[in-house]
Amino acid sequence: MANPSILILAGDGIGPEVMAEVKKIIGWMGDKRGIRFDVSEDLVGGCAYDAHGTPLTDATMAKAQAADAVLLGAVGGPKYDKLDFSVKPERGLLRLRKEMDLYSNLRPAQCFDALADFSSLKRDVVAGLDIVIVRELTSGVYFGEPRGIFKEGNERVGINTQRYTESEIARVARSAFELARKRSNKVCSMEKANVMESGILWRDVVQEIHDREYPDVELSHMYADNGAMQLVRWPKQFDVIVTDNLFGDVLSDCAAMLTGSLGMLPSASLGAPMANGRPKALYEPVHGSAPDIAGQGKANPIACILSFAMALRYSFDLGQEATRVEKAVEKVLADGVRTADLMGPEGGTPVSTTQMGDAVLAAL
Amino acid sequence: MANPSILILAGDGIGPEVMAEVKKIIGWMGDKRGIRFDVSEDLVGGCAYDAHGTPLTDATMAKAQAADAVLLGAVGGPKYDKLDFSVKPERGLLRLRKEMDLYSNLRPAQCFDALADFSSLKRDVVAGLDIVIVRELTSGVYFGEPRGIFKEGNERVGINTQRYTESEIARVARSAFELARKRSNKVCSMEKANVMESGILWRDVVQEIHDREYPDVELSHMYADNGAMQLVRWPKQFDVIVTDNLFGDVLSDCAAMLTGSLGMLPSASLGAPMANGRPKALYEPVHGSAPDIAGQGKANPIACILSFAMALRYSFDLGQEATRVEKAVEKVLADGVRTADLMGPEGGTPVSTTQMGDAVLAAL
Ligand SMILES: CC(C)[C@H](C(=O)O)[C@@H](O)C(=O)O
Ligand SMILES: CC(C)[C@H](C(=O)O)[C@@H](O)C(=O)O
Repeated sequence: MANPSILILAGDGIGPEVMAEVKKIIGWMGDKRGIRFDVSEDLVGGCAYDAHGTPLTDATMAKAQAADAVLLGAVGGPKYDKLDFSVKPERGLLRLRKEMDLYSNLRPAQCFDALADFSSLKRDVVAGLDIVIVRELTSGVYFGEPRGIFKEGNERVGINTQRYTESEIARVARSAFELARKRSNKVCSMEKANVMESGILWRDVVQEIHDREYPDVELSHMYADNGAMQLVRWPKQFDVIVTDNLFGDVLSDCAAMLTGSLGMLPSASLGAPMANGRPKALYEPVHGSAPDIAGQGKANPIACILSFAMALRYSFDLGQEATRVEKAVEKVLADGVRTADLMGPEGGTPVSTTQMGDAVLAAL
Repeated sequence: MANPSILILAGDGIGPEVMAEVKKIIGWMGDKRGIRFDVSEDLVGGCAYDAHGTPLTDATMAKAQAADAVLLGAVGGPKYDKLDFSVKPERGLLRLRKEMDLYSNLRPAQCFDALADFSSLKRDVVAGLDIVIVRELTSGVYFGEPRGIFKEGNERVGINTQRYTESEIARVARSAFELARKRSNKVCSMEKANVMESGILWRDVVQEIHDREYPDVELSHMYADNGAMQLVRWPKQFDVIVTDNLFGDVLSDCAAMLTGSLGMLPSASLGAPMANGRPKALYEPVHGSAPDIAGQGKANPIACILSFAMALRYSFDLGQEATRVEKAVEKVLADGVRTADLMGPEGGTPVSTTQMGDAVLAAL
């Protein structure tokens, strides 16, 4: 049997640097644990535009469709700010999400004990925090038509369309309920049903799927503005949050920042099962391409390493190996090993991107 | 000359309780400062639905249009959750905003010194915080057409439309720049121009108005998801934030919660000048109707009192009287007078809604 395949799309900015550390871990898995992957690499985002005039070529898209898992670094940078909307680095990422139909985006917001003092929030508010935002990723205002900038009389009008079908809501709701069953069996769904009809449909469908298929899971509903408040006030009241593409974008970043360690947070974007039973899947750190520190060896590779751990768990059914990687990261943090972004008043051993990767390897 | 007129719409839940305290302050202004208003009262929200089958009658709408200022308490409650979308309490509030054309919603997020320990954020992150979110309030996805829940084949589809014209963006941008000139001369505009064309138009128009009319103001742009992060990370980096209706809803609630004192925060919604030179205006606390504590004398009336202070400043050009009210509130807080929501570990004198109103009166 062939090895499972991984397509690496390191992207722009710090993407290639943090991905280099993941490659070491992949190598270690093969050498020490006999778990081998066929790894190939390609371009996405600004670097793809530089090489081919598009942030994602059809050939790369086809490779992503065929891969057992895609690992993505980050896309974008000021160099590409003036590009036309249609070829911006982000379009490459959005095309991958849409064409691979990765409708369920899992964004854990976890507060690492060694880093609890790092948050702008008080220790007791965030210590031990472990919640997951399940964000719908292939629909809503990100993809709805009509969209564009039009001329109306003398002026321009900017239009986007928030559009959700019943089945789009149902499938992401199911994925949230499934996840909740493996955790504390509790889901909070967020929308603006008091203002938007798409929010009413969202609330109704989530409730229907719950009543029909997951009556054992505790379900609550909350307006998204209140959700933002409650995340800041007392985030531990939540376990799994399910929400749409745009609210998910904002709320997951808010939740991520609560933990104070953006450089630590991974994500998984999952779609329907392929012929081999594995879900279509793309894994990426929550942080961006951080152009301001790119190329300086300052980036924290942990979010990207933990994204690979999520791949082990969700794509390759290697939960134990995933835990092994996560424990190694925890140990390194407990030992006080710190990239620049993790350097707090309490000190620690300052390390570069490469040294952090090596420390995780050593802990493995 | 007739006295300036105020229409009071106390609304639902704790609305009438907190508004009762404002009426005392209005009375004090007449008795002690010779500043008299013609005050009338009417219904909005669930109570209007109970009385008339609609959350806002045409007669009340006409009174609001004619008033020099509208003071609103809060709308909504679980009793009305099952009502049809078209007659929900919120529709009353949204109709007022839309028909009075209150496009500029000022939401200060201010951290009161006596309450800095109250925030879930660390003291140094929020102490002294004083920022204002200027939220566009009459357009965007709240009002765009087409909207509704439709049948498509076998399934329902929920649709809303995000729609902004150049002039809608321009006028709220101007109001943010004007405000910035009276403060630290700094505006940050937030959208998702990397994903939404309406966000591209937003960014372009804000930049154009800046370059043409307010080149002296410092302007930056930020994606709204990053905005949510930065608000949590280090809110003092901001002074005036300008954003659209939906992002403004979520981000202003997030900002409000940073201060830890939601019961303290007022808001002003301003439109174009009327014939008498005063802007169309509605003032309301940021908090909601809090049905869980309604009728128990537990509500904090300060947000509503400070909303009246904003009315003195923005509608009646009585900045000094506004400051007088604000200083009285500060004194009461410094003296340790505390409604239940302000009761922290450090203690204080517990008071009811009425007692808090009386304490502010005494401090005046
Ligand atoms: C880069 C951008 C297109 C993207 C999004 O808006 O989804 C990012 O913010 C994210 O959350 O993954
Ligand atoms: C009550 C509701 C319609 C309203 C809104 O969404 O605008 C509220 O959340 C607000 O922020 O004033």
